[in-house]
Amino acid sequence: MTGLQRSWVESANSAETDFPLNNLPYGVFSTSNEDERCGVAIGDQILDVALLESEGLIKLGPKPVLDLPFWNDVMELGPDKWAELRARLTELLGKGGDPALSGNTELRAAALVLQADAKLHMPFVVSEYTDFYAGRHHAFNVGTMFRGPENALPPNWLHIPIGYNGRASSVVLSGTDIRRPWGQLKGPDDPRPRFEPSERFDIELEMGAIVGTASEGPITLDEADQNIFGYVLLNDWSARDIQAWEYQPLGPFQSKATATSISPWIVTAAALDPFRCKTPPREVELLAHLKDTGPMLFDIDLSISLQPEGGTDSIIAETNYNEMYYSAAQQLAHHTTSGCAMNVGDLLGSGTISGPEKHNRGSLLELSWGGKEPFTLDDGTERSFIEDGDTLTLRGAAHGDGYRIGFGACEGTVLPALKSPFG
Amino acid sequence: MTGLQRSWVESANSAETDFPLNNLPYGVFSTSNEDERCGVAIGDQILDVALLESEGLIKLGPKPVLDLPFWNDVMELGPDKWAELRARLTELLGKGGDPALSGNTELRAAALVLQADAKLHMPFVVSEYTDFYAGRHHAFNVGTMFRGPENALPPNWLHIPIGYNGRASSVVLSGTDIRRPWGQLKGPDDPRPRFEPSERFDIELEMGAIVGTASEGPITLDEADQNIFGYVLLNDWSARDIQAWEYQPLGPFQSKATATSISPWIVTAAALDPFRCKTPPREVELLAHLKDTGPMLFDIDLSISLQPEGGTDSIIAETNYNEMYYSAAQQLAHHTTSGCAMNVGDLLGSGTISGPEKHNRGSLLELSWGGKEPFTLDDGTERSFIEDGDTLTLRGAAHGDGYRIGFGACEGTVLPALKSPFG
Repeated sequence: MTGLQRSWVESANSAETDFPLNNLPYGVFSTSNEDERCGVAIGDQILDVALLESEGLIKLGPKPVLDLPFWNDVMELGPDKWAELRARLTELLGKGGDPALSGNTELRAAALVLQADAKLHMPFVVSEYTDFYAGRHHAFNVGTMFRGPENALPPNWLHIPIGYNGRASSVVLSGTDIRRPWGQLKGPDDPRPRFEPSERFDIELEMGAIVGTASEGPITLDEADQNIFGYVLLNDWSARDIQAWEYQPLGPFQSKATATSISPWIVTAAALDPFRCKTPPREVELLAHLKDTGPMLFDIDLSISLQPEGGTDSIIAETNYNEMYYSAAQQLAHHTTSGCAMNVGDLLGSGTISGPEKHNRGSLLELSWGGKEPFTLDDGTERSFIEDGDTLTLRGAAHGDGYRIGFGACEGTVLPALKSPFG
Repeated sequence: MTGLQRSWVESANSAETDFPLNNLPYGVFSTSNEDERCGVAIGDQILDVALLESEGLIKLGPKPVLDLPFWNDVMELGPDKWAELRARLTELLGKGGDPALSGNTELRAAALVLQADAKLHMPFVVSEYTDFYAGRHHAFNVGTMFRGPENALPPNWLHIPIGYNGRASSVVLSGTDIRRPWGQLKGPDDPRPRFEPSERFDIELEMGAIVGTASEGPITLDEADQNIFGYVLLNDWSARDIQAWEYQPLGPFQSKATATSISPWIVTAAALDPFRCKTPPREVELLAHLKDTGPMLFDIDLSISLQPEGGTDSIIAETNYNEMYYSAAQQLAHHTTSGCAMNVGDLLGSGTISGPEKHNRGSLLELSWGGKEPFTLDDGTERSFIEDGDTLTLRGAAHGDGYRIGFGACEGTVLPALKSPFG
């Protein structure tokens, strides 16, 4: 593992920043006087790469791909260009690199925007969204609650990464308020269903992998790994009571369609490369098309915090992406087995990332054991599920020697349900 | 019900054509000398509406919306413009209407293209695709096969239209060959799963409803009905053996992702208006947000035929869209309950449309009762599931007094699986 790479942007040379030169994550931002365009986080600044492209300091192809409100066109250029862009940014921002930017006072002033002065937007157009159920501890916890520990894992679970298609239109940027949903509910004691606001609204701490290269037919695990452009934090907001009533026999539907929040910066697979790690030991040998061929998971520390309205922020769970049983590459490879075409901008949710201990659980459903064991916040108040006004925040970072590859926060505040479902 | 409306395009004045003046369905076509653009079927011709727009005979908005390879931009204009376009086309193509086209020999020759000389393309960009399970007979048949007649319907089935998110990238135009998929399978007698080509590849006869107006939060049933732009025939190709192994607990995934074929012409809700009918009597009262407020199903005769390679075409099932328990409007209204945003171009599959009798079953799974009772084609050969080289064709039409509103065929030929899954 290399140490901190130094930049002439001084705020990037701290062990605490999410965005050292080693990271260079991709986002979309706007300022009071300019529309949405592509930017790269560096320290406490955003580098306006659309401006650098128009000034000729970055040239990726025959037409501009950075003065756009999404990174999809860069992804379309393919992995060689991804590597070229990263190398060029390192050269332009690194201490002692190409002085074309660092040595041009006027351009520096125009191209570096303080993050505090910018508004962030969705970093890419989500083509389709798939959500998986590939965390061993989460599947075991949820299965135990519903079926007992002997039958916790479905028979297929150790053989394929179980997934379902989610709703791309549900994906929103961190910071977007989340309205508590209405839905059809039927508790075990209700004689018939009722249409009411969800009473068991929850989160799921996940990582999202972004497909950067399209494919038509089945692809190998190595191809899948190469096709992933980058990662974000992902919160799969989940209405447990709507889910319990609707999910048999065809899976979750409206329970997962209210919102899916993502963190604003795409952290590239290249930036995470030093943090690759293996999946846990296989409990059953995987079939050839899914068998691990190398380290494709990542060592990323993750946390959830909850802040009641007007209260203080409590960390309620801490876990790590390396707890997953299946990597995003395995999920993507499985996704293509039937000939399913994958497109640039497809987003794959990892599934809830829980660890072995109680404090490692990635959902309130698990933290409160289905509401039966409420947990306590730092200020002494109790929670089973989300209450109106609560702000839920996911954070994540890979930790290197003297630096961190951070994701920025993925947060959302839950607003009360509408008085009538129809506004 | 009005009778046949007459056109000066003589082939449109037949009781046998799918495309009389009453229909005016929307497609996308190309010819040897011109790229993909919007067209309208009339008799055995396609009216090049992109040309009429460029000539000023049709004007829908400030910028052209018809010289495009999709109808999404027309949908974006909203229901008033949809009505205006239909009225204008009726005026231009009707006998004794506006002579701007009929009286201009040169323009007529340029604007009418024989269907036989054109190539058809996907008529719209599919934003997201959702598939439902809303046919009472199909759900009962499948449930009986798996759980016995007493437990055939899941407890939620009579209260909500059960649906799952499908894969938009799987949607292809009628005529596209369908490659038998590979997948992970495990039969009841297999000690462990295996990765092999599907042995139980099937179809599902469905209607597809196209969302023409976007919505952000929950919408009423009446709003949902108004937001549907039109309908197509839809074949939800299904690998039953992949499905059986993967679908617990999160629903079908790769079993449904190989392909979803649609018919080439969008038949508008306006053209189908005379064929509106009620849903069947409710077995349990629906909650207020789903309760029927008017006739929102349609009386459309449907059939499936199967033609073995080099053999003759046998009709293997006949049914009607009016057999559905839930209308597309009810499905769309339910889809929005959680606040799920819907977009122009979203496609909703009705679910398999089976009727009460054996000959009314909309899938081979039901026709062969899970493979236990093979059915016989006209030439005496038997089928349980699809064999390589088989062409499956869906057909559909609403029958008026002396005319029919047809959909054109929705067909696909199944090619053998690749020797290796990776091409």
